[in-house]
Order: sequence, then C-alpha cells, then structure tokens
Amino acid sequence: MDPLRKFLVNPTKASANQVKLKNWDPQYTWNKNKIDAVTEMDQFSKNISELQYKLFAANNKSLLVILQGADASGKDGTIRQVMGALNPQNCYVKSFKVPNDAELAHDYLWRIHTEVPSKGQIAIFNRSHYEDIIEPFVNNLISKDQVILRCKQINDFEKYLSENGITIIKFFLHISKEEQRRRLQERIQDPTKQWKINENDIVSHRNWDKYVGIYEKILSLCSKKWAPWYIIPANVKHFRNWAISYIILKKLEAMKPEFPRVVIDPSEFILD
Amino acid sequence: MDPLRKFLVNPTKASANQVKLKNWDPQYTWNKNKIDAVTEMDQFSKNISELQYKLFAANNKSLLVILQGADASGKDGTIRQVMGALNPQNCYVKSFKVPNDAELAHDYLWRIHTEVPSKGQIAIFNRSHYEDIIEPFVNNLISKDQVILRCKQINDFEKYLSENGITIIKFFLHISKEEQRRRLQERIQDPTKQWKINENDIVSHRNWDKYVGIYEKILSLCSKKWAPWYIIPANVKHFRNWAISYIILKKLEAMKPEFPRVVIDPSEFILD
Repeated sequence: MDPLRKFLVNPTKASANQVKLKNWDPQYTWNKNKIDAVTEMDQFSKNISELQYKLFAANNKSLLVILQGADASGKDGTIRQVMGALNPQNCYVKSFKVPNDAELAHDYLWRIHTEVPSKGQIAIFNRSHYEDIIEPFVNNLISKDQVILRCKQINDFEKYLSENGITIIKFFLHISKEEQRRRLQERIQDPTKQWKINENDIVSHRNWDKYVGIYEKILSLCSKKWAPWYIIPANVKHFRNWAISYIILKKLEAMKPEFPRVVIDPSEFILD
Repeated sequence: MDPLRKFLVNPTKASANQVKLKNWDPQYTWNKNKIDAVTEMDQFSKNISELQYKLFAANNKSLLVILQGADASGKDGTIRQVMGALNPQNCYVKSFKVPNDAELAHDYLWRIHTEVPSKGQIAIFNRSHYEDIIEPFVNNLISKDQVILRCKQINDFEKYLSENGITIIKFFLHISKEEQRRRLQERIQDPTKQWKINENDIVSHRNWDKYVGIYEKILSLCSKKWAPWYIIPANVKHFRNWAISYIILKKLEAMKPEFPRVVIDPSEFILD
C-alpha cells in the first residue's frame, strides 16, 4: 500500500463527478496499530526535520501544505501532532477564519496570496481559499456556475504558484458523519475541549450532506498534478497522522533540497 | 543553582555599568553533561507543549521571546533545538534582518510592532529592535546619547507591551571571542555550514570589543522586571539549550494559562 497512490485523487482521471466520498473508507487503517504508527512517525519526523533544514539552507523553493475537512475532522490535531516536529524558524501555520472587513473588500485570493511561503519556507494552511467555495455554496450565496468558475480560478492560481517554486500538497481529512457527531459530543462533555465548540457546529453538522456534495466537487475539479488532493482516512487519528507525515516526507524527498555549494578559500578568510 | 536567578541581570540593581561580561563565564555548565541535559529537556519540552496548548485555548495572553547574541552565538541552533518542540499553530519565528526600504522609511519600532504576538501566541524574535542600537553604534552612526535615548524608548515600548498582556523574556547568548573564531572557522571547513558564512563575519569578529561594549550597555540599561535580560552561557550548546528551555518553562508556568471555562448545557446542543 503506497499512500501516495492510494489516497491520491488521480489528476489524469479528472471529471466533474470523479470523487464519491462514499467510496472512500474514513475508517481505513491498513491494520496499522497505534504503537507502530507512532514509532514510524518518529522516524519520519527526524527525516522531515533534516530535509526542512536543507530547504531552509537552499533558500530557492518552498512547500505549501493545505488542510481542509469538516468541523472536528482533526485539522488542529494534525498540526499539533504532525507539524509539531517542524522547526518554526522556517515553518508557519496560517489559520484562515471568517474574512474580516479588509479581506472582504478585496478579491478572495488576496488574503491567501499574502500568506504563501517565501523561498526556504514551509507554510501550513489551516483552511484556505477553498473555504471561499465551500461556505458560500453551503449558504446558497453562489451558484453552481460560480463554483465551477472559482475552481478554475484556483487551479490557475495554484499552477502559477507551482511554476514559481512552490510545491503544493492538499489534504482532505475524511471523517464519517457518525465520527463528527461523536467528536462534537465529546467536546461538550470534556472541560478541556469545550472551548473549541462553535455556535455553528450544530448547523454545520445538520448540513453534512451539503458539505459532502461541495467537497466532492472540489476534490473532483481541483486535483491537478501541480497541486494534488489526497483524501486521508481520518476517523482513526494515529493513522491519519501517519499517512500525512509519510506523504509530506515523500514530497520533501522529491524536492531534493541540498545545502548550497559555496566555494570559499580559507586563506581569504582570516580571523583575528 | 536556579537559572532564573543565576543568569538574570537583576533589575533592582540597575546602573549604567552594571554588567561586565568578563564577570560572566560563557563556558559555565553547572557540571551538567549532555545526556542529562537532553533527557531533562525532553521533559521540559513536553511540559512547555502542554502549557502552550493552554495558552492557545485561553487566548488572552501571549509570550515574546527575544534572542540576541554575536554572530555564531547559536541563535538559529537554539531555535531549532529548543523551539522545535513548539506547536507551529500558535508559535512563529520572526528573523529581523537588515531593514528594507519600507522599514527604513519608518521609525525603528514600526517593523517590530507589526510582529508582536497576538493573544494566545508565542513569538520568537531572532534578533530584534536591539539591533537598532547595536549596529548603528558599532558603525559609528549614533552617539552615546542616542544609545541612551533608544534604550529608554525601548524600555517604554516593552513596558507598554507587558501592560497589554505580553510576557517578555530576553536571552543574550554569551560566547567567548575564541568560541566565535572556532565556530566561524568550522563554517569554512564544513560544506553543510558554508552557506551560513556572511561577508560581514570577518568584520564583526574584528569588532568584537565594540560589540561587547554596546551589549554591556544594553544589558545594564534594559533589564526591567517587565522584560528581564538573561545572560546565557552559550559556549556549550547542550547547556545553553537546557537553560533556555528551563527558563521558558518557568515563565510559562508563571503565566498560569488555563482552559477557558465554558458552561454548556448538553440538552441545548442537539445533533442529528
């Protein structure tokens, strides 16, 4: 089982109805138990750290990781448990919330563009420009034609970024409706999790089917070879973490960051 | 030995000539060997992570860590080895380099103010507003009176930040001139370190005594109870990391972040 193939929304088979989430098992774990997953992830993290340091030194390319998924699908947990191993010197997380007045006064990619990673950096987007399709659609503010137009605009934008040295990976954290209900209920019961409850949680759980519909459209229309979507089974947290960590490691390896060659003549470098 | 006391520049004893760096041993390790230091740091890191998560949840206070020190004193290494354990969701590193045109067109605290941490966040400043005293002074661009004026302005600025919910810790990484020479030579020999060599390294090594003089002034005039300076012995990297990790942990403990109390009636929270 190669996560790079198994969880990929294949760009070469793209069609408007390519992805049906009922065909993707949110409970899948490849029979990997938690101890093995954590042990292997520790090694992935070490390798990721080394590659991250070379990316920083090389200072010519960057990596953008986009996390999307329903409420309670585990975006924050993924960042804490997978990205926690990254050096904050050249890695940052940007959480896109409801747009503020200045952001609403601009086109929807304006606030996104200001946050793309500079050379040598890794950026993690906790939600992203895809929210500008999802939320307006679920709330009946844009038509299906506008959805298709925005998908096309985003494909073009991501292509431009990739042509300018940014490697893009997009993860959709796939949980079941039952798992969402279970996690939201847990938040109510657990005093250390109540602060995460949002007044919109009930509404968004009620709109589950609408969210599934628009995510299927996005996953079908916006998985491109320059910015592929991976549908990560996310009911089981340790497997979710393992799969994302594995894919990030493989993408970083493929970027082949190297320490820059600097030829220095020690005889010209005289210190007191 | 309590690092919070031993390495503190005591604000209650402030005078213009309080700090003489020759009285601070850069080689000090408290006889702590590397294995013990690393083992203890692992535990500190776990505790820091828990407190960081509570700080994020509480969303009412923030932490600003300032790193200063000569070239090759280990600022980058400290960030990688100590701050690497922090969750990038609510922690970011800002490296202040030579000011760009837009920054030079403003007052020197302008670019600093835009980067102070928002509520719930931890910011690490790799260099800071203190560079706007150090570099102009070493290059004879400002007078001693201007140094004193800027120290006063910075004290006021930091006091204002602390009055508005930002806890400030400042670390001076203290190495010897011999150690700087050794590390710069190592960068020339090691192909994985050559990229770090800066054309100014030779000049700044030559100006060692001038840097010591201005650092002593800053440490003497700007260690305040709301923003204390700690002089960290930094010739030995594992002890440097251990001491900084310990102090950050203790400061976070003193901030007492707690999960917010949210009282929710489960009967009002009905999911499909």
